[in-house]
Amino acid sequence: MKDRQLLMIPGPIEFTPEVLRAMGMPTTSHVASNFIEVFGTALERLREVFLAPDAQPFVVAGSGTLAMDMAAANLIEPGDAALVVNTGVFGDRFGEILQRYGAEVTHVRAPAIGDVPPLEEVRAALENPPTSAGQGYKMMTITHVDTSTAVALDVERLAALGREYDVLVVVDGVCSVAAEELRQGAWGVDLALTASQKAVGVPPGLALVVAGPRAMKTFRERKSPVVSYYADWTKWLPIMEAYEAREPSYFGTPPVNLIWALNVSLGQILEEGMEARFERHRQISEAVKAAIAALGMTQVPVSTDVAANTLTAPYFPDGVDRSVLGHIREEGVILAGGLHPEIKARYFRIGHMGVVNASDVFATIGAIEKGLAEAGHEFEPGAGLAAAQEILAA
Amino acid sequence: MKDRQLLMIPGPIEFTPEVLRAMGMPTTSHVASNFIEVFGTALERLREVFLAPDAQPFVVAGSGTLAMDMAAANLIEPGDAALVVNTGVFGDRFGEILQRYGAEVTHVRAPAIGDVPPLEEVRAALENPPTSAGQGYKMMTITHVDTSTAVALDVERLAALGREYDVLVVVDGVCSVAAEELRQGAWGVDLALTASQKAVGVPPGLALVVAGPRAMKTFRERKSPVVSYYADWTKWLPIMEAYEAREPSYFGTPPVNLIWALNVSLGQILEEGMEARFERHRQISEAVKAAIAALGMTQVPVSTDVAANTLTAPYFPDGVDRSVLGHIREEGVILAGGLHPEIKARYFRIGHMGVVNASDVFATIGAIEKGLAEAGHEFEPGAGLAAAQEILAA
Repeated sequence: MKDRQLLMIPGPIEFTPEVLRAMGMPTTSHVASNFIEVFGTALERLREVFLAPDAQPFVVAGSGTLAMDMAAANLIEPGDAALVVNTGVFGDRFGEILQRYGAEVTHVRAPAIGDVPPLEEVRAALENPPTSAGQGYKMMTITHVDTSTAVALDVERLAALGREYDVLVVVDGVCSVAAEELRQGAWGVDLALTASQKAVGVPPGLALVVAGPRAMKTFRERKSPVVSYYADWTKWLPIMEAYEAREPSYFGTPPVNLIWALNVSLGQILEEGMEARFERHRQISEAVKAAIAALGMTQVPVSTDVAANTLTAPYFPDGVDRSVLGHIREEGVILAGGLHPEIKARYFRIGHMGVVNASDVFATIGAIEKGLAEAGHEFEPGAGLAAAQEILAA
Repeated sequence: MKDRQLLMIPGPIEFTPEVLRAMGMPTTSHVASNFIEVFGTALERLREVFLAPDAQPFVVAGSGTLAMDMAAANLIEPGDAALVVNTGVFGDRFGEILQRYGAEVTHVRAPAIGDVPPLEEVRAALENPPTSAGQGYKMMTITHVDTSTAVALDVERLAALGREYDVLVVVDGVCSVAAEELRQGAWGVDLALTASQKAVGVPPGLALVVAGPRAMKTFRERKSPVVSYYADWTKWLPIMEAYEAREPSYFGTPPVNLIWALNVSLGQILEEGMEARFERHRQISEAVKAAIAALGMTQVPVSTDVAANTLTAPYFPDGVDRSVLGHIREEGVILAGGLHPEIKARYFRIGHMGVVNASDVFATIGAIEKGLAEAGHEFEPGAGLAAAQEILAA
């Protein structure tokens, strides 16, 4: 599928041999006792990875967009007001999904692409909900890392603010969970979600949602039925509860191989430990970003403070365009182009999450140096590698 | 995951080594040129497998229920009338989904579990739509094979009837496509759908929908927006068109490994040829059903005319209960319990679709004979195997 090329995009990422072996194992029945045990264990492990001891996990066949859809479809009722803390394309998308289910959506946007909205502006928005929303905002969404800008929001402080105003705090953790520091329970995050192909380390095909007690209470107290059938927790909750109780059940056939692979990956994540994992992602990210700077490139995030640890989004240097990504691919490393419509042609993206290690960083920076040289960019050969090594050997 | 046990349930089924190898291959980017080629080819091949040359295929991460959800969410608007030709649990489910999106639903039910509604009753229903539906029924759904009863409907005749009354003919082909004779284009079926883990031969995780020109026209002429975000063709249509045009695109990350495996399996299906495949399923089914009769068991379908070729649903003999399935599993063959709530404890299900062959039939019947003997059922040992061989060696 990709030979020995190294996949350094913000998802799908590189997966471990054990995860890929689970993907390729002969499939068993969705009610076989060993699969029930695996699914039940995966649900328990999700709580540990999300650091959400009292939350309800949902694992459903779908993409990350389905995870966002589930959050909106199950928690929003027509006329609710929702606040989107917006740092890019995926903030726009969450706003669109919330509107679809009848929410009146307000965006608090960053002053510029690559920046974050000031906390005071988020507070001001929470203070002044739209007049139609009699009870204030019902929900605030936070894109932990917007994959289109590589900008990370301060979830801990934003969630605390949300708690102050008694709104449901929903975190789109698609490009963060299992890599960026996220403590769902301790930080008062009511719902966090991701997709399998990011730092969770499983090929694409699973939507992962972890809903805390306030989110589940909001769901249970709905006045109107959920409109989307496939996203409806009324159907999925008994299934998740049954698997966790190690009992057979059926709504839709679960994606057996993907869930088997998920359980393998979650086991590997917990074996490393969440604290070690957060720290490794910080260090790898610092090394990549130091290398990018040493090669004379600036980045989409306006400062280190707002830059994600899961990916790096460099602007192409002057005189270089996205054709350099082809040169880099010929060197064996697959990177991603831009995604944000306003700057799409001017930048590229390097994913570094999951099982990413120092070898991957050297391979990637080495290939970027080679590609930049072919594209005619001037820099000291090896400068990027040396800058990365300075961090990684520290 | 299942060692050397043989999985003879109505999905997931046994998959080929080539399909499982694709599942376990290192994942590439969803916009890698070789993946775009694979996805585009899979879409083209779906048209051939569904025998729907002018239809639009959709391949989305999800279960078969998502495929049903997509049909209802995109084609139904509040106030539409829909007729469900109901032969079991999955007719009930389609009715529930249609109602969710605002349809007024009428069921034409079989006179008894295991039977089909007479064609004249379907015609009478089409003649007399609910008065609220000014223009008559908008849609008729047909569960080609209801997995809960092993009953097959006569899609060709029902679709012709639907055409007469100008309703959209929607076929739930979850337990039929790529095994039962289904000629979507020639029979005037407007939409057919299935899931990957059935006769299409790919592990669970893909919803497959093939929508003909009238269905697409109905979608394009909607007056109200689609309410479900994840199921919305407005989002997915440009993606399917882009992959088929061999161009990169992005909405949600496609399940790369599953789609790679889908393309492998569709290639194997077309290599066998649809006519040969229909015939093989007929013969295998006949052999299993002859064996079941020879062992003194009756079946849920009331006659051969209404029995599916993809699975067999025998009633347990007197004095035998579902614990016999445990004995059969110890012999190396996994069968499924009952699903229809009214008769759940009284019958079991044998799936025989996809790559199923004569060896699988002998292994299955052999294990059933052993299990029945342990359960104290009296029969002539080998009678089931001999009955199967009589058909298979013919």
